[in-house]
Amino acid sequence: MSPAQNNTIPAKAYAVFADDSPFKVFDFERRTPRVDDVVIRIHYCGICHSDIHHVYNEWKKETYPLVPGHEITGVVEQVGSSVKHFSVGDHVGVGCVVDTCLKCEPCKKHKEQHCPDVCYTYGSTELDKVTPTHGGYSNLVTVKEHFVCKIPNNLPLDAAAPLLCAGITTYSPLRQYNVGKDSRIGVVGLGGLGHMGVKLGAAMGAHVTVISTSESKRNDAIKLGAKAFLVSKDKEQMKTAANSLDLIIDTVSAPHDVNALIDLLKFEGVYCLVGAPPKPLEIGAFPLIMKRPIITGSNIGGMKETQEMLDFCGKHNIVCDIEKIQATPETIKTAYDRTVKSDVKYRFVLDMLNAFK
Amino acid sequence: MSPAQNNTIPAKAYAVFADDSPFKVFDFERRTPRVDDVVIRIHYCGICHSDIHHVYNEWKKETYPLVPGHEITGVVEQVGSSVKHFSVGDHVGVGCVVDTCLKCEPCKKHKEQHCPDVCYTYGSTELDKVTPTHGGYSNLVTVKEHFVCKIPNNLPLDAAAPLLCAGITTYSPLRQYNVGKDSRIGVVGLGGLGHMGVKLGAAMGAHVTVISTSESKRNDAIKLGAKAFLVSKDKEQMKTAANSLDLIIDTVSAPHDVNALIDLLKFEGVYCLVGAPPKPLEIGAFPLIMKRPIITGSNIGGMKETQEMLDFCGKHNIVCDIEKIQATPETIKTAYDRTVKSDVKYRFVLDMLNAFK
Repeated sequence: MSPAQNNTIPAKAYAVFADDSPFKVFDFERRTPRVDDVVIRIHYCGICHSDIHHVYNEWKKETYPLVPGHEITGVVEQVGSSVKHFSVGDHVGVGCVVDTCLKCEPCKKHKEQHCPDVCYTYGSTELDKVTPTHGGYSNLVTVKEHFVCKIPNNLPLDAAAPLLCAGITTYSPLRQYNVGKDSRIGVVGLGGLGHMGVKLGAAMGAHVTVISTSESKRNDAIKLGAKAFLVSKDKEQMKTAANSLDLIIDTVSAPHDVNALIDLLKFEGVYCLVGAPPKPLEIGAFPLIMKRPIITGSNIGGMKETQEMLDFCGKHNIVCDIEKIQATPETIKTAYDRTVKSDVKYRFVLDMLNAFK
Repeated sequence: MSPAQNNTIPAKAYAVFADDSPFKVFDFERRTPRVDDVVIRIHYCGICHSDIHHVYNEWKKETYPLVPGHEITGVVEQVGSSVKHFSVGDHVGVGCVVDTCLKCEPCKKHKEQHCPDVCYTYGSTELDKVTPTHGGYSNLVTVKEHFVCKIPNNLPLDAAAPLLCAGITTYSPLRQYNVGKDSRIGVVGLGGLGHMGVKLGAAMGAHVTVISTSESKRNDAIKLGAKAFLVSKDKEQMKTAANSLDLIIDTVSAPHDVNALIDLLKFEGVYCLVGAPPKPLEIGAFPLIMKRPIITGSNIGGMKETQEMLDFCGKHNIVCDIEKIQATPETIKTAYDRTVKSDVKYRFVLDMLNAFK
């Protein structure tokens, strides 16, 4: 054992210890900081729907204890000797990824999230494939500089936290498909991801249409910046809007009719899935060959793009609409129950700074 | 009635007169040639599988009499006064489209086949939305110059005929996705379309893998220019080839597992459907968001691209592998039966020059 290993940092977190266990306080050690590490005092952590999938072990692959959380904001407390871009006191964020090989094709393309050796922020392991990673429902985290982002100082750390997942997930396809002032885009679903898609798309100058199963979301959609609203179950409305959109960002994770969405696309338009429906999408061959759409998906974004998104949000003063709660086992459970029912506008954010006092 | 209408040209064809009727000789008039028309003596016409769908009224939309055929080659017999690019005696071809508006977005993008007012070569109407169009199982056809292609003189007119549909259908996505000597492409299905995909892909310098349900096609695939062959039902073979292809052209019209094909794609690879399976494709959300493939389709090609394809085939001496048959009602029926059973290498071509003697 090398002497350096003695310099681990005691940390606290809320963890689950089995797939039917409640959250409990978990005392553990963050790794000894390396020369390229940044130690971050966590202030806030967003609750992403995927946290809930992990905690309930819906993907049947968890190891315990499990500390969720990948929408992390906080303040730099310590930096390693080779860290170049961060200083103590900086406002920073950490998203879904904390390490990758940085050598493979996706890494070279600045899409680190697609590295075959990707180390997710929690429920994963470090590059050694052994040491478990623990997420942001915690008071501290130690992360390699490359995977830390600067949060612009004009953005509040609480409402900025979900930018690290919900924000970049919608920003990435908007940028990838060159959305700008001449674009007509559709955002399907008005939850955590969808409301960010509307804000970001509108800030890029696009004409945004929200497509939802529920008429009740119309007013909110318009307030967030949408110019139009379609009730997906209303065939007449959908028909009127046929062939009108350049890009659709589909944030819905429940099974739904994708062909009806493709009908809304212009010739050679783009449909991009960012939700994760449990059943395969059914896509008709005829629309595929006659409209030549691009059907694709997108998964968060690379580090360069995530920083670009945060800078864009800083410039346009964009954050998430959140409900901030004090983190306790009980409040987390209540937030999970409400998130499952889509009863949140639009993201719960846990106050971690005061969580373990 | 204007005097010009007296100058219609008597023609003969093989037509069906109802959805359960055999082919019979049909005497009719081709339109009075316009100033921009080319009158073509048809020498050969390929049998495309879609002819069979039309003749058996599988899409429930036919009007009668119906004269199929959109893989037409022949010789120019007459040109209108404003025709610029063709002279009497030229070798020419006509594919699936004989007129469009030439003003809309797809037309301006040189993708006339996607014009909302597209006039197909048969089973359709002219731009007046009234006059029926009749295809290439005929001795003559009159077509607007814009929709006529030159056939390079080194290509035989019989084996060149299927280039007008099977050729351009596979050429277009190969070009669209910049296939060249560094490309690794997959061609799914080794029929009329598939065998052209192999020949064209190989001529572009790509490493071509044929993916088929049947080991029996391996030798033919290699002879046609493929460098590798995968039996799609062999999970071990498919697994070994995972993440290896830049582009897959899927020519299969039967229901099949598209996710297994997406597994073969590299990160951000392209899957392009050119077949027309009757049931929707089922595409898993997880591969879509984790591999970011482009899932798309393609339908023949525009006129500029069709001419480019013919010139490419002339340069590389590429034609289809065909079985040439004298056109009679009986031989057409036999050819249809064999085509339905995929018992043809790889396209039937009807000799129309000697059909009505």
